[in-house]
Amino acid sequence: VSRVWNFSAGPAALPEEVLREAAAEMLDWHDAGMGVMEMSHRGSEFVSIAAQAEADLRELLAVPPNYRILFMQGGAIALNAIIPLNLLGDKRVADYVVTGAWSQKSQKEARRYGEVNIAASTEASGFTSVPAAAGWRLSDDPAYVFVCTNETIDGVEFPFEPDLAAMGRAEVPLVADMSSHILSRVIDVSQCGLIFAGAQKNIGPAGLTLVIVREDLLGRAMPHCPTAFDFKVVAEHHSMYNTPPTYAIYIAGLVFRWLKRQGGVAAIEARNVAKARLLYDFLDASEFYGTRVDPACRSRMNVPFFLRDETLDDAFLAEAKAAGLVQLKGHKSVGGMRASIYNAMPLAGVEALVAFMRDFAARRG
Amino acid sequence: VSRVWNFSAGPAALPEEVLREAAAEMLDWHDAGMGVMEMSHRGSEFVSIAAQAEADLRELLAVPPNYRILFMQGGAIALNAIIPLNLLGDKRVADYVVTGAWSQKSQKEARRYGEVNIAASTEASGFTSVPAAAGWRLSDDPAYVFVCTNETIDGVEFPFEPDLAAMGRAEVPLVADMSSHILSRVIDVSQCGLIFAGAQKNIGPAGLTLVIVREDLLGRAMPHCPTAFDFKVVAEHHSMYNTPPTYAIYIAGLVFRWLKRQGGVAAIEARNVAKARLLYDFLDASEFYGTRVDPACRSRMNVPFFLRDETLDDAFLAEAKAAGLVQLKGHKSVGGMRASIYNAMPLAGVEALVAFMRDFAARRG
Repeated sequence: VSRVWNFSAGPAALPEEVLREAAAEMLDWHDAGMGVMEMSHRGSEFVSIAAQAEADLRELLAVPPNYRILFMQGGAIALNAIIPLNLLGDKRVADYVVTGAWSQKSQKEARRYGEVNIAASTEASGFTSVPAAAGWRLSDDPAYVFVCTNETIDGVEFPFEPDLAAMGRAEVPLVADMSSHILSRVIDVSQCGLIFAGAQKNIGPAGLTLVIVREDLLGRAMPHCPTAFDFKVVAEHHSMYNTPPTYAIYIAGLVFRWLKRQGGVAAIEARNVAKARLLYDFLDASEFYGTRVDPACRSRMNVPFFLRDETLDDAFLAEAKAAGLVQLKGHKSVGGMRASIYNAMPLAGVEALVAFMRDFAARRG
Repeated sequence: VSRVWNFSAGPAALPEEVLREAAAEMLDWHDAGMGVMEMSHRGSEFVSIAAQAEADLRELLAVPPNYRILFMQGGAIALNAIIPLNLLGDKRVADYVVTGAWSQKSQKEARRYGEVNIAASTEASGFTSVPAAAGWRLSDDPAYVFVCTNETIDGVEFPFEPDLAAMGRAEVPLVADMSSHILSRVIDVSQCGLIFAGAQKNIGPAGLTLVIVREDLLGRAMPHCPTAFDFKVVAEHHSMYNTPPTYAIYIAGLVFRWLKRQGGVAAIEARNVAKARLLYDFLDASEFYGTRVDPACRSRMNVPFFLRDETLDDAFLAEAKAAGLVQLKGHKSVGGMRASIYNAMPLAGVEALVAFMRDFAARRG
């Protein structure tokens, strides 16, 4: 087995320890005589796996007791519809802060279910920063305020945790798409009414969607919200109203335990800071490479960068691949390169990337 | 590794060969240097995996070229909403044939989106048969006719393939929930407008939902259908409008190849007939056990049965488990026992079950 350094934005690299555990247990989990993929979701074995995953996640993120953890399906894109279907209630409007491709997509989908007010947008400046909360133009009575706290494509991460209470709007729930940086940094869950995340970046396999929702927000679904996606129904059935993505929950649980062995979220955050600093410091010092994102809002997880001479892009990607560094091509809407360096990417992987980039620049610069 | 005989109704046993392949490739798929779970869904490796899975399924079921194969999320329960959201169009009513717990659930969910006409129901007789198509009371102009061709809980399987054209209603699309018997028998896809199936019985892991839909039925979604569940959008993006459940698709692909190695659907059907006959013949000859389903409609996949002395139920389950025969408890709404004997259950497993049942009856009868 020869493993590459995989900089995919998602589905993304998983901890090798987790994959080894999963492979070893594939045919027989803890002497159950069957693999996890083959277990009834109602059986005691799988119920214990799901409960442990939920408990570990609750501990890792210090989720307060008045929040429910839901394991759902559909990814963040389906949630873009499921959230207004569940939260608009009898309100007329929802507020969206648009900081990149993902929050843009979210507000567009929400318009199918109600009125959307763009409270702030950095589109005009090319999605390279996060607008200060003091400048957000909130509606008088929005159902919620939506933010994407890490924009996977644009590489923009909120440098602050939005605090609606401090803005005198404690009654408005904050809804945060944290798909690409959840579990990468310490957060205060109580600042949010709802947090959601597709699993395929920092949690586990694609096909699992995590929702953390404050209990008072349950029970507001519109009549045409599919029952399987009504947060209240999902919560009441402990994420088993419909058959959940059992194997993905199991892998997520292995990732949560791995993260606890790493020392938890604060410990992995320190490593993520060091990884990001190494790469950004190198980019800042380089005349060969560059990055466009405001230094105050640079994502620790997704680092878009470019070669100043873009005619060298193909050679860069080909030589990187030959050196065992893969999935570095940037999203087509941004161009250039992107290195996604989630929790599972060790410092050694970023060091290997920087060493390659330095060598490539020396040879081609 | 000591494996049990797993009679779970779903998620259910998978072929051991498939699990061995998946375990061997967990850290490194075909020298890609990464596992399938870690691959970008846009990368050439995963695109090839998904394309091969689709091609193999198309071959196994002889899916005509004017049908699209979609890999979706949410399971059959979410589809109960997604189908009316996609197919009601400008019609007032949809027709449902109710033959058990699952079609009952389907028609209830559909009522949230339009009018439902119960074209036929066997509820009054306890869901132990399938009403002859000649007696269905179809609406004048239904959007579709819905059937569940194998009722997992009640153990009732359609002994005929509904042919709306033969009923003079060729213009009405037949929608069939085949979750628990797809790929277990030869079918004529062209009789249906849409076929759907949760994967966790005869296809692969929970979290993947298969949809096979005739192209002329695309593009009818209601305005409030979430974009991620609009069949037309999913088809146009080759099931990658949102990140698909990549690992589940990969496992399904391994199952499809395994099924081809078994000789395809006709060959597995012959084995399924033999397995079901062995078990039903034993039940029919027994004074200790019984089954309530009309012999003409007995499911080959899900065999509910009961002990005539139900005070022995707990002892039966405990001794079966000790003998390595698990997940035999019947669904709570039916009671008694249920043996689900999907494609992955070999004849040897059914033989072991019958031998145990014979022995138990001899000792306790």
